[in-house]
Amino acid sequence: MNNKLQLIEELESSVRSYVRSFPAVFTKARGYKIWDEDGNEYIDFFAGAGALNYGHNEPGMKKKLVDYILDDGITHSLDKATDAKVEFLDKLNEIILKPRGMDYRVMFPGPTGTNTVESALKIARKMTGRTDIVSFTNGFHGMTIGSLAVTGNSMKRKGAGIPLSHTVTMPYDNFVESDNDPLEYFERFLEDNGSGVAVPAAVIFETVQGEGGINAASMEWMQRLEKICREWGILLIVDDVQAGVGRTGTFFSFEPAGIKPDIICLSKSIGGYGLPLAITLIKPELDKWKPGEHNGTFRGNNMAFVTAAESFTYWEDPQFEKSIQRKADKVTKFLSDMIEKYPEMKGSLKGRGLMQGISSDVEGFSEKVAEHAFEHRLIMETAGGHDQVFKLFPPINIDEEGLQAGLDIIEKSIQEAVESMNLKEETVTN
Amino acid sequence: MNNKLQLIEELESSVRSYVRSFPAVFTKARGYKIWDEDGNEYIDFFAGAGALNYGHNEPGMKKKLVDYILDDGITHSLDKATDAKVEFLDKLNEIILKPRGMDYRVMFPGPTGTNTVESALKIARKMTGRTDIVSFTNGFHGMTIGSLAVTGNSMKRKGAGIPLSHTVTMPYDNFVESDNDPLEYFERFLEDNGSGVAVPAAVIFETVQGEGGINAASMEWMQRLEKICREWGILLIVDDVQAGVGRTGTFFSFEPAGIKPDIICLSKSIGGYGLPLAITLIKPELDKWKPGEHNGTFRGNNMAFVTAAESFTYWEDPQFEKSIQRKADKVTKFLSDMIEKYPEMKGSLKGRGLMQGISSDVEGFSEKVAEHAFEHRLIMETAGGHDQVFKLFPPINIDEEGLQAGLDIIEKSIQEAVESMNLKEETVTN
Amino acid sequence: MNNKLQLIEELESSVRSYVRSFPAVFTKARGYKIWDEDGNEYIDFFAGAGALNYGHNEPGMKKKLVDYILDDGITHSLDKATDAKVEFLDKLNEIILKPRGMDYRVMFPGPTGTNTVESALKIARKMTGRTDIVSFTNGFHGMTIGSLAVTGNSMKRKGAGIPLSHTVTMPYDNFVESDNDPLEYFERFLEDNGSGVAVPAAVIFETVQGEGGINAASMEWMQRLEKICREWGILLIVDDVQAGVGRTGTFFSFEPAGIKPDIICLSKSIGGYGLPLAITLIKPELDKWKPGEHNGTFRGNNMAFVTAAESFTYWEDPQFEKSIQRKADKVTKFLSDMIEKYPEMKGSLKGRGLMQGISSDVEGFSEKVAEHAFEHRLIMETAGGHDQVFKLFPPINIDEEGLQAGLDIIEKSIQEAVESMNLKEETVTN
Amino acid sequence: MNNKLQLIEELESSVRSYVRSFPAVFTKARGYKIWDEDGNEYIDFFAGAGALNYGHNEPGMKKKLVDYILDDGITHSLDKATDAKVEFLDKLNEIILKPRGMDYRVMFPGPTGTNTVESALKIARKMTGRTDIVSFTNGFHGMTIGSLAVTGNSMKRKGAGIPLSHTVTMPYDNFVESDNDPLEYFERFLEDNGSGVAVPAAVIFETVQGEGGINAASMEWMQRLEKICREWGILLIVDDVQAGVGRTGTFFSFEPAGIKPDIICLSKSIGGYGLPLAITLIKPELDKWKPGEHNGTFRGNNMAFVTAAESFTYWEDPQFEKSIQRKADKVTKFLSDMIEKYPEMKGSLKGRGLMQGISSDVEGFSEKVAEHAFEHRLIMETAGGHDQVFKLFPPINIDEEGLQAGLDIIEKSIQEAVESMNLKEETVTN
Repeated sequence: MNNKLQLIEELESSVRSYVRSFPAVFTKARGYKIWDEDGNEYIDFFAGAGALNYGHNEPGMKKKLVDYILDDGITHSLDKATDAKVEFLDKLNEIILKPRGMDYRVMFPGPTGTNTVESALKIARKMTGRTDIVSFTNGFHGMTIGSLAVTGNSMKRKGAGIPLSHTVTMPYDNFVESDNDPLEYFERFLEDNGSGVAVPAAVIFETVQGEGGINAASMEWMQRLEKICREWGILLIVDDVQAGVGRTGTFFSFEPAGIKPDIICLSKSIGGYGLPLAITLIKPELDKWKPGEHNGTFRGNNMAFVTAAESFTYWEDPQFEKSIQRKADKVTKFLSDMIEKYPEMKGSLKGRGLMQGISSDVEGFSEKVAEHAFEHRLIMETAGGHDQVFKLFPPINIDEEGLQAGLDIIEKSIQEAVESMNLKEETVTN
Repeated sequence: MNNKLQLIEELESSVRSYVRSFPAVFTKARGYKIWDEDGNEYIDFFAGAGALNYGHNEPGMKKKLVDYILDDGITHSLDKATDAKVEFLDKLNEIILKPRGMDYRVMFPGPTGTNTVESALKIARKMTGRTDIVSFTNGFHGMTIGSLAVTGNSMKRKGAGIPLSHTVTMPYDNFVESDNDPLEYFERFLEDNGSGVAVPAAVIFETVQGEGGINAASMEWMQRLEKICREWGILLIVDDVQAGVGRTGTFFSFEPAGIKPDIICLSKSIGGYGLPLAITLIKPELDKWKPGEHNGTFRGNNMAFVTAAESFTYWEDPQFEKSIQRKADKVTKFLSDMIEKYPEMKGSLKGRGLMQGISSDVEGFSEKVAEHAFEHRLIMETAGGHDQVFKLFPPINIDEEGLQAGLDIIEKSIQEAVESMNLKEETVTN
Repeated sequence: MNNKLQLIEELESSVRSYVRSFPAVFTKARGYKIWDEDGNEYIDFFAGAGALNYGHNEPGMKKKLVDYILDDGITHSLDKATDAKVEFLDKLNEIILKPRGMDYRVMFPGPTGTNTVESALKIARKMTGRTDIVSFTNGFHGMTIGSLAVTGNSMKRKGAGIPLSHTVTMPYDNFVESDNDPLEYFERFLEDNGSGVAVPAAVIFETVQGEGGINAASMEWMQRLEKICREWGILLIVDDVQAGVGRTGTFFSFEPAGIKPDIICLSKSIGGYGLPLAITLIKPELDKWKPGEHNGTFRGNNMAFVTAAESFTYWEDPQFEKSIQRKADKVTKFLSDMIEKYPEMKGSLKGRGLMQGISSDVEGFSEKVAEHAFEHRLIMETAGGHDQVFKLFPPINIDEEGLQAGLDIIEKSIQEAVESMNLKEETVTN
Repeated sequence: MNNKLQLIEELESSVRSYVRSFPAVFTKARGYKIWDEDGNEYIDFFAGAGALNYGHNEPGMKKKLVDYILDDGITHSLDKATDAKVEFLDKLNEIILKPRGMDYRVMFPGPTGTNTVESALKIARKMTGRTDIVSFTNGFHGMTIGSLAVTGNSMKRKGAGIPLSHTVTMPYDNFVESDNDPLEYFERFLEDNGSGVAVPAAVIFETVQGEGGINAASMEWMQRLEKICREWGILLIVDDVQAGVGRTGTFFSFEPAGIKPDIICLSKSIGGYGLPLAITLIKPELDKWKPGEHNGTFRGNNMAFVTAAESFTYWEDPQFEKSIQRKADKVTKFLSDMIEKYPEMKGSLKGRGLMQGISSDVEGFSEKVAEHAFEHRLIMETAGGHDQVFKLFPPINIDEEGLQAGLDIIEKSIQEAVESMNLKEETVTN
């Protein structure tokens, strides 16, 4: 191990994780490329777990950012007004919200995904006077106690050290394979007043579950969920932290379903450049916070306002969405081909947009693919409760060449994993 | 109202707060100075609520930061290894920890104060197998559910929408005036096994309570608290998010007390430049996290690593601490003089270091002082459950001239508040 | 209203309920008969909601009880040893447990159903070190906070005034009509470690849900539930408070399913004569209570020990079970006939043993039947979250004549309800 | 060990407790006397932990009870109206409540102390819309989860297996020795809105803490507590389960303090004869229960109604209270003499009325006294978190002869304990 990794091992907490899977010291990055201290070049199909949808150090944002800093623009402002903040709000409204017919108030809850989720749950409980939140199996919403209570992962839940409460978990779309009506249970629990489940303040869900295994809910499921919420006066919260900001092909991941959430949680790529930022979009009639009732030191991260405002210009061009969709189609075709070509991995296709992957029923297979990919200098993560999915998260503005290069490495890695795990023979003999 | 403030009113959530007290659109800042869009210059005695201890846009850090960005340094890395992170860890260890004889593991829990507090509570519960945390009256630790449960403020607690649990509040130093032994209660609760209070996993406290009213615990109180914790096997957590990083005159606020916390929470000024960053320092024997048991998208904010590493160089010069202390003495003398000169405000001195203020027993007085100060272009906050304290938070590297200019405005504002509230007459007639 | 009912209205809390449905002042009772102050005779198909399975004032027990009192036998003993207690334990073991091959320790948790449930949940949590309990939709387990948290009824849950926690509700058999595998959900939740549901300490269920609507679980459902519990190390608690002590035809209601619960809760008819008593049967290896870790003033109700010991003699005769079964068959046939004969009531058969009823899809119908029955001097209760079931709970030792007399009144009442609600015409016109 | 005790050891749960301290099989009892199976006679200074204030099998009640049973009076009625219940309510009102100017509704919450406490907490939370209850150090209120959450004893709290929540513990009178104003803390917590303690729904307390160590609150403390509750709109609940029904010299233990609780919990001796019964007295304006919102199978224990109604006749004679007081004075004098005569036991006087004892600072001393007393055939319990108190609980209608006989045994036992623990020598040598 080199000195720098040694130093990390000695000084950093044992909680560190990705440095274990990707043991290199990175120094530079641009677009979908990233380099380590020895000058090795990697393709990044990880994209900061969805925080780098526009790739690393996007040139337009970079220029704006450097100018802002050189000009002594405000860096930190709590929630005082700054030029940068005003421009962010204005562009968010003009470029993103208005054209989509969306009327929301923007809350700055602190600059991370878990901050926006916590703020969403608070306002939902406050506005309804109810305490329970319904979340879904394999949902992932954050690590602070409020968000962790709506997160499914058992290892992370145990990390709380206390029982997590005021939440009820319902089955996500396709959670039970034999079930042809996955929301029937939720409805039955609501309508039978002996069910033990009270009408909740809100439901919170991801349209595609990133950490939970790249599970994509169908449009019908989302529409039916919205309908149930309307019937029962339940608030609908979409956590679009990972699936939002273009990751699935549209700015908001729920657009194709035509639903209208009461509250939307955004973070990760909302800042554009990988800088910490989060916002909570709240329907005006629900925005009844008292001043300062929720706050946070870094809720006004002005550098992120600057890059975010610039990032919105991508969305002025209607071709942008189409280009993502084209690349998504390419990925879908590639993964489908792989599943067919390598039946040994017992794979199934997961996700949508540029948030796709393969779930393998062979234990350890997906992790092995990711390992081989890293040997070939492609960075790619696994997901799901048993790490059963390897997931492709290229920047959404990646060029065709970069995308193809990544896919080539992935095919090679699948092939090697099949071999190194001796799956071929096994299949033959069975 | 100007157009930009109008836009904020229309688009931003009603939860916004400081923009209400300081209705101006800020554009630039340097050191202790900040300018609005009309070019008006303000003195900043707020310092980002402790996030800007080195002032705005400190030139040395600014240079490093711009160079890093121009050079396409890694911006976002989750917890992969980067050059910037390694340098941060190395300097933190060499300049800050080692010289103070401190051996801690560094955890990156997500880049805000509430993230570090949540991580501290989790590891304390995990390591002890106990659920309760003891916090203290008027403590402030954050807005996510875990941190909010150890925060005293009733308005913010109600914002949770659910009962907050697994915590017990004990009286902070001087909470009960007549009490000459403020930790006796805590001890009695521990030693009587019919007390209804179980031995907690940890206590968490601030050495000086920033939001709670600039209440400074005495050195004896802290030492006795540490002793009680040792006797009962309770972990000692210092939340040094606001009082740390030089605010009270030493890097860690607890240094003069000679105590050795098991866990230390740092954020706000740890990044140096006002960029989101937080770390949790954990004694090595307690650092038993599983990989990824707590995580967060922005735990590797490399720009903040760059500025933080640079900020540590301040602490290489032993004169730095002394200079803070000198300025603190000046503030103490100034405020003492004010209390004597304006008995009408019924003031008492609060805090220590460059974290001082006056608590006034006259309802509304402190807010009035802050209002007048803003008219004279000095930015200063109030604190305490009834906003009874006006607090002075200049940058710790402010020069004598800036400090004096600020104090002059404050005296003028006190004088005006006494007049505008007719306190003079009132005092005469009583 | 007569004077005595007036006095009750003035002095008793508004929480009173049955006195509203059955507005008479009762004075005497014997077997299945009960008389009011005016000498009117009623047939009791309510049987103290299962607390009077042997009828009122059963002569054999009455004699033993009076002799005991006249002889100055110990009335109240906490958990000191008494002759009466020893005899109770001995007969319970010799007549009930041993012949069924059951080896359990007997706990006296306080003399009510909710006491035994609370004690069962405590020992399950203590022995497993887990906090969650899985209960089932429409389960009813008691009114104290621990038991209420596993009870489904929403009105009663709201009565807690606090959120109820540390429990998860799963669908009971037939809760979702279209579902042909009602335990699949529970299994999926257990096996997917991203489900948000932790492996619980225990499941608690009733084999036939009395208050919840006379829902009878199938034998297969119970067997499969036991299997799941064994696989996952989950304790199996049967709450046999209402369905036990012969109500379904065997002493324990789960006997036909062949399952072996880890903990069994008994109350209501366990005392034989309607006197407060409850016991918790615990497998010896789980009986790791510390002395006094759970206690209660009336856990040694010796008069109930005396009558209970006598009541066990019923079970020495193998004909007793058969006689209950015969009467149950008669009730089944009668109710089936009614459903066929009066299609207007849209009825379906519920329950088993002498715990049967009809669930009517016509709103208010079942309550109307019970009202008419009371006019004809038969006492009968409704059940279910919407009072949609009228339920027949005759004493299990009722004679044929009494049973027939009761059924005759019920038919008459159904007929009248159909008429008074104009269901006949409605059916015709539809 | 004899056969019967052997059988208990084999069949009864390990949770059994008193049978361990008093290893005899009891068969008969009358007044203050109790006999074991070998005909040995014991003096009972335990009185069913306060459930047998009128002694065992009081002849007047016994006669009424036997007549009622022989006459086939209703035994079990849920909450239907019965003659026995009407008479109970009428006499309670006429003999006990009205003469004391008390206007309360009577709730039957189930027949044990913990049932009445749970019902009191529910209605308090429901009526105030608040969740927290304030209880006091060393309070004891019951074993079900709601009551356990307001109980101080740590061993019993741990038995819950879950964290207990929605409660805050405040220091009882004299909890902190040096404190001359024990309610100042509570007031400070209420008035400082940064205290972390919300205004609670209610406070619940015992005027004399029975299990907690025979701690008697001063009249001033109770009056001040009532005043605080009125100022803050907090409901005042007195748990008079153990101290009520004459135990301290008046029917309600709080009478001498002149306070007017909003809710009063009664059980133990309210039934008169040692039969399970509990009632909750609720101010009419707070009695807003929905029908059946709280219920319980044995809430109508008619045999206990019969004996209770008879027991109230004791209170028709004004001499009764005086006779208790006379005996209490005798006990006070006796215990004071003992403390003086045997300084080796480092004793202090505890309690009031016929609920007194000595707290010894010598570890194990009080248990030793109780052991010796049992050898001399007097039954007496210890109390307090460390069993540091031996407590005298004779029946309140005991005659002078019986009382003296008991005191003689106690003196002998103290003397023997001093000797057997070698305290005399120790004292000499020190």
